Amino acid sequence: MPGVTTATLRIGVIGVGRIGSMHAELVARQVPGASLAMVHDTYPAAAAEVAGALGVPVATSVEELLDAVDAVAICASTETHADLLVAAARAGKPAFCEKPISLDLPEVDRALAAVREAGIPVQIGFNRRFDPAHRSVAEAVASGTIGDVHLVRISSRDPAPPPLDYVRVSGGIFLDMTIHDFDMARYVTGSEVVEVYARGALRVQPAFAEVGDVDTAVVTLTHENGCLTVIDNSREAAYGYDQRVEAFGARGMAASENPLAHTGVVRTADGTVAPTLPYFYLERYVPSYVGEWEAFVDAVRAGRTPPVTVADGRAPLVIGLAAWRSLRENRPVTVAEVDGG
Amino acid sequence: MPGVTTATLRIGVIGVGRIGSMHAELVARQVPGASLAMVHDTYPAAAAEVAGALGVPVATSVEELLDAVDAVAICASTETHADLLVAAARAGKPAFCEKPISLDLPEVDRALAAVREAGIPVQIGFNRRFDPAHRSVAEAVASGTIGDVHLVRISSRDPAPPPLDYVRVSGGIFLDMTIHDFDMARYVTGSEVVEVYARGALRVQPAFAEVGDVDTAVVTLTHENGCLTVIDNSREAAYGYDQRVEAFGARGMAASENPLAHTGVVRTADGTVAPTLPYFYLERYVPSYVGEWEAFVDAVRAGRTPPVTVADGRAPLVIGLAAWRSLRENRPVTVAEVDGG
Amino acid sequence: MPGVTTATLRIGVIGVGRIGSMHAELVARQVPGASLAMVHDTYPAAAAEVAGALGVPVATSVEELLDAVDAVAICASTETHADLLVAAARAGKPAFCEKPISLDLPEVDRALAAVREAGIPVQIGFNRRFDPAHRSVAEAVASGTIGDVHLVRISSRDPAPPPLDYVRVSGGIFLDMTIHDFDMARYVTGSEVVEVYARGALRVQPAFAEVGDVDTAVVTLTHENGCLTVIDNSREAAYGYDQRVEAFGARGMAASENPLAHTGVVRTADGTVAPTLPYFYLERYVPSYVGEWEAFVDAVRAGRTPPVTVADGRAPLVIGLAAWRSLRENRPVTVAEVDGG
Amino acid sequence: MPGVTTATLRIGVIGVGRIGSMHAELVARQVPGASLAMVHDTYPAAAAEVAGALGVPVATSVEELLDAVDAVAICASTETHADLLVAAARAGKPAFCEKPISLDLPEVDRALAAVREAGIPVQIGFNRRFDPAHRSVAEAVASGTIGDVHLVRISSRDPAPPPLDYVRVSGGIFLDMTIHDFDMARYVTGSEVVEVYARGALRVQPAFAEVGDVDTAVVTLTHENGCLTVIDNSREAAYGYDQRVEAFGARGMAASENPLAHTGVVRTADGTVAPTLPYFYLERYVPSYVGEWEAFVDAVRAGRTPPVTVADGRAPLVIGLAAWRSLRENRPVTVAEVDGG
Repeated sequence: MPGVTTATLRIGVIGVGRIGSMHAELVARQVPGASLAMVHDTYPAAAAEVAGALGVPVATSVEELLDAVDAVAICASTETHADLLVAAARAGKPAFCEKPISLDLPEVDRALAAVREAGIPVQIGFNRRFDPAHRSVAEAVASGTIGDVHLVRISSRDPAPPPLDYVRVSGGIFLDMTIHDFDMARYVTGSEVVEVYARGALRVQPAFAEVGDVDTAVVTLTHENGCLTVIDNSREAAYGYDQRVEAFGARGMAASENPLAHTGVVRTADGTVAPTLPYFYLERYVPSYVGEWEAFVDAVRAGRTPPVTVADGRAPLVIGLAAWRSLRENRPVTVAEVDGG
Repeated sequence: MPGVTTATLRIGVIGVGRIGSMHAELVARQVPGASLAMVHDTYPAAAAEVAGALGVPVATSVEELLDAVDAVAICASTETHADLLVAAARAGKPAFCEKPISLDLPEVDRALAAVREAGIPVQIGFNRRFDPAHRSVAEAVASGTIGDVHLVRISSRDPAPPPLDYVRVSGGIFLDMTIHDFDMARYVTGSEVVEVYARGALRVQPAFAEVGDVDTAVVTLTHENGCLTVIDNSREAAYGYDQRVEAFGARGMAASENPLAHTGVVRTADGTVAPTLPYFYLERYVPSYVGEWEAFVDAVRAGRTPPVTVADGRAPLVIGLAAWRSLRENRPVTVAEVDGG
Repeated sequence: MPGVTTATLRIGVIGVGRIGSMHAELVARQVPGASLAMVHDTYPAAAAEVAGALGVPVATSVEELLDAVDAVAICASTETHADLLVAAARAGKPAFCEKPISLDLPEVDRALAAVREAGIPVQIGFNRRFDPAHRSVAEAVASGTIGDVHLVRISSRDPAPPPLDYVRVSGGIFLDMTIHDFDMARYVTGSEVVEVYARGALRVQPAFAEVGDVDTAVVTLTHENGCLTVIDNSREAAYGYDQRVEAFGARGMAASENPLAHTGVVRTADGTVAPTLPYFYLERYVPSYVGEWEAFVDAVRAGRTPPVTVADGRAPLVIGLAAWRSLRENRPVTVAEVDGG
Repeated sequence: MPGVTTATLRIGVIGVGRIGSMHAELVARQVPGASLAMVHDTYPAAAAEVAGALGVPVATSVEELLDAVDAVAICASTETHADLLVAAARAGKPAFCEKPISLDLPEVDRALAAVREAGIPVQIGFNRRFDPAHRSVAEAVASGTIGDVHLVRISSRDPAPPPLDYVRVSGGIFLDMTIHDFDMARYVTGSEVVEVYARGALRVQPAFAEVGDVDTAVVTLTHENGCLTVIDNSREAAYGYDQRVEAFGARGMAASENPLAHTGVVRTADGTVAPTLPYFYLERYVPSYVGEWEAFVDAVRAGRTPPVTVADGRAPLVIGLAAWRSLRENRPVTVAEVDGG
């Protein structure tokens, strides 16, 4: 019976907006070894609704929640992540933290220092590492099946652009969307990124010009080990949520294709027709969210370091900042320029 | 928030073995508009474990459960289905009933008479109709996309043979396994079956000879509208749960392919490697179980007839009985021979 | 440079209708180690046209051709095959013979006796054995990769029905079309067929009723080793030439899928669109025709027995005759009933 | 009968090395409306061998050949192309010319001036435009099916690196290999390239460092219409010849996948195994070579401009030169910098 264990990790969720309420529900219902203990939100009504539906109490403050739980999920808005990580560190509670940790590198470093000092386990929410297809690509590299990796190719396209108000505070395409691909590039190659060249265009949402954002991008990454990664992004794929990763190496290649909505196919004199892609991340990645929770819970219960570390949370942010500088100056930018000081 | 509605259908589950506990959990957690109200099992310990995990009370008798719920799920062993349907009919409670209704045609008819008299909504658990890929095949026929249907081809292969003790009471391959395919043939073509020719073999589990069962079979069905269906079955597919349906018609064909475990692929000089199939029905069909529950709950709440009727439960049983006679006498057998009197 | 060798097998083609002119051209242009030496046809104009295009002389008689060549391709109409095989045997010339050898079993046996007595190498034109995809299925069985074979599933559907006049003399669906599938069943399983059950329907071309033919069929074969083969056929697949073979065994399965016209795919909000199948055998099977010629030429030049023997030509005919009797009497028919005497 | 027409275009082939002898054979055997009239090569033995195999005379000089034919195929080594185009122009003979026209822009312009002045039809050998899968991508753009194009993604990977001696004179990866992809980017988008950023690496063949070449590359192109193209290349794909083109636009995407060697597939408990890719261009692109010949012959016979013009031959060379400058200076380079003067 899923969900039935004897000693469970009692988890509190801070922030129950779209992504936080999903995490709360997954923890409550689908993660063996864990239970939802409490939720908190700066909007009490939101907290009350989710708490009611899932049968748990509402915490009226972060402190109350941290007191009452074995571990915490930080799912509130990005600008609060660093403070909440510091609070979790002070309370000595293991933390799962949604990405990005912050849009501001010094803020990230402040949070990381607190985490390091307290020695709490922290896992960053790069869920795509737990998608079985993407994972199979990383494993084909790590196992040597495809030999030394020479090229990585990532396509990541959303079904529809976010509202302008979101883009205004999100850090823009490279920090709210491509950041997943920067993580994937590091995850698949196992090598740090040393240089970034980004090219962007406004093809979908001209209004993004107001905030200096683009909606279409191609980014080339040079890795420490000499491998090249190329990423293409769009904010609007008419056919759904397009997410593909491919690694090419000395002995072969490994790729994750998009799943289709189902496996039915129709052939007539006009050709062959199949369904389209899943619409967005909820249709595509729920198993990977469950997977990251299982990994976090297992690691915390076993006293192991969770698999997506704070360093894994920091590096893609730096790459994203370099991408923005590259786009603005139309030249390759080294990561050291952004991070070095 | 899934599962959060105001007026829910309170459902009781009778029989919480492997399939019943799955239904209980789905109703408890994943079916909008429904909630799990109570469970019952002839083994009180089994009932207690499921009830505890899902936070509902145990009914000590069928009557207590029927009294307390808005609708009932009949998931106990096959030989109890007819009596439980009669009890639900007397209690005036809508019933979801696992297939088959009974292995004995007069028993089926006794239950159906009670259901008809009471006028309760009943849905039979042919979940595969709710698989989106198989459904797309039926829809391609129903919509006329592929024209008049001429041929249907169904492969249905389990990963491993059941225990001999199960086969002894299950009605054998045609009544516990092929029965899903007989339903699919009727569902996809929209036409009744008039003649059956079955050929079987023992290739996997010689011990099945003791109970007169086979583990490998090919069945040809002739439909009222002239269409031919061919079904192949095996109790043991080394590569997982193989489930495919194909309809061929005057203007094209529609087919449901097997999903793979994930979409990753590796190419080397030795060829292309992809994952294998889902292992069994839990890995393949959970969304279709959710789908049949949604359909049942929607129908009952809206006062509509549920989509898989008692007649849909009876017909595949008759075809299965004809298949057994055909296999034993090695000749085509008309459905009328078995059902006619 | 393809086609350039020093000592080539000089081949004469008898009968240059649709299939014969294709063979003549392949031999002339694409078969290493062979050259086209001469052609003959009972219609001199047909012979002259092909001979002119390919730059070879016309033989005015079969005898003249047999005298002038190293080997002969028998591609004239079916009723002449037996006599031509006898003539080739008497002339001591290796023969490639299109299928079927004859529609009449005693005629086949007369030709085979002559061939055996003369000891000439003979290869029957079951080209599909040389299709790399179908061949990979047979090899997966022969190598033990999929274990003992339990089930074989063959779909074979033509794009459009032949003219009634053709059907009148062709021996009907089981002898002009399914005969390839009977060959494939023997080829893939490596086991003889002992019993046949055929079910047919008229769904496409009602006029075929005049000559007692059907246009839609399902045939179940029982093999000597206990394996079951199921074949489905249609004379009219709106989406092209559908040719699939699948073998299922104790350790896995192997299947040949249809190639599509090309690998392009388009995804929009409406779904995924891909091309349709090749139209007919010329679009699908030319490489397999080249393959059978390479095998024949290699065998003859090396003094080996060609890979599709006269026994391989006779067995599918017997199965086809059993299928006709089964269809007409609606009962399973053993091969022994038809062949035994 | 393929190859049989009444008034054929008599074609002479200059240069019968690997690619030239292939063209000679295709023209001789597979191009309706054309015949091979004569061949010439600076190595008389090579000319004699091909001429003998195909039954045509050898021309002892370019002039003799130009005199004797209706049109000429220029397949000799790259450094001769410009002079041969000029000679064809002077002789007033339509010319098919292998790519690149020259590695030297002034040379290209000299040839183009002669062609323009003489008004002869010229077609450049970018055969991939005639591959039906790649063509389907271009057509999905041109027809508006996928809307305004935003991104193009091209992978082009050879099975094995060429010899160092070839690389020394070929112009390096961007002029002998990526040049096809530059053509494809223009063909698919219908828009000129204005800026190039190239990143390269030596991952396969360290010896290429001697001549300043790379074996692994990623190139980003910015088009006049704002679209971005990203190309990845490798000289050594262990799994064969990997050639994919994808266009992404406002209303969808279109892509050409790699064909596999055949359609057979095997499933066991270990997973699903399929064949690998075609080995190299002869296994993959022969139909596209036939296609370009058909287009050339049709255009010349109809008095139309052939479909891949001299401007189409010049533009990819300019892009390639810009790519080299970009790689060496590690900065984006505009096409105007290279071409402007």
